[in-house]
Amino acid sequence: MSNPATQTDEFMQAAIDEARQGLAEGGIPIGSVIVHKGRIIGRGHNRRVQSGSAILHGEMDALENAGRQPATVYAESTLYTTLSPCAMCSGAILLYGIKRVIVGEHQTFMGEEDLLKSRGVSLEVQHNAACISIMNDFIAARPELWDEDIGR
Amino acid sequence: MSNPATQTDEFMQAAIDEARQGLAEGGIPIGSVIVHKGRIIGRGHNRRVQSGSAILHGEMDALENAGRQPATVYAESTLYTTLSPCAMCSGAILLYGIKRVIVGEHQTFMGEEDLLKSRGVSLEVQHNAACISIMNDFIAARPELWDEDIGR
Repeated sequence: MSNPATQTDEFMQAAIDEARQGLAEGGIPIGSVIVHKGRIIGRGHNRRVQSGSAILHGEMDALENAGRQPATVYAESTLYTTLSPCAMCSGAILLYGIKRVIVGEHQTFMGEEDLLKSRGVSLEVQHNAACISIMNDFIAARPELWDEDIGR
Repeated sequence: MSNPATQTDEFMQAAIDEARQGLAEGGIPIGSVIVHKGRIIGRGHNRRVQSGSAILHGEMDALENAGRQPATVYAESTLYTTLSPCAMCSGAILLYGIKRVIVGEHQTFMGEEDLLKSRGVSLEVQHNAACISIMNDFIAARPELWDEDIGR
């Protein structure tokens, strides 16, 4: 019998594809997509290594690639991310009033989920096995790079 | 007699210079510098218009221009910004553990100052007349652009 909770929907799969692309580029494997009315309007992955960037986490890269959008579009959008969003990415979600966030996993890193929920953001954690495995492997391989990415 | 509270120190002046540069480029006049051990290590200004960016607020641009820094550098740094930091920029400050933030003004926009203080960030608001004047003029001239920048 199929269990929907163990399946990866197309949008989380797109975020995972972004994470894997980042890994293939030598980067930190975290990906994100922003979905508006059933269509991906922005997608991205962490670019700390690739662009020497301190701000292009996966979610930020997806927001940047979505471009300048009206407030109504953000309010109607859902952000998918392979990993629980950190303080910076959570702040960006709050700034733009994104009301729904789907998180691949929060086992390897717990972001600002309580803050998001306290501000009325609907949050769903999928406990996605692929997301967990990608991050566990990466953190084991490059602990110093991971620490840098989360400000440790 | 001079009153230190009404004077603009060199670092806030550098942030104001960034804001004015942004205005001269046709952009949103908010600037920021990051100071480590008495030296500016990153400076920037809002680039929504100039780069079509949804994430390059003044503080984010300064962080990006500072480049990848070790956690100890952020912890020892002070961020100067002409305007009270929004949720995204406040989140970035929290992510990187910047412990001290100097705000030019919070009269034209009140950012996430309570959140920052609740997390132990030392915050000083200067009520700087130049910062207030720049933003008042800009908001009056381009209200729709300002609304976009703060997710309204």
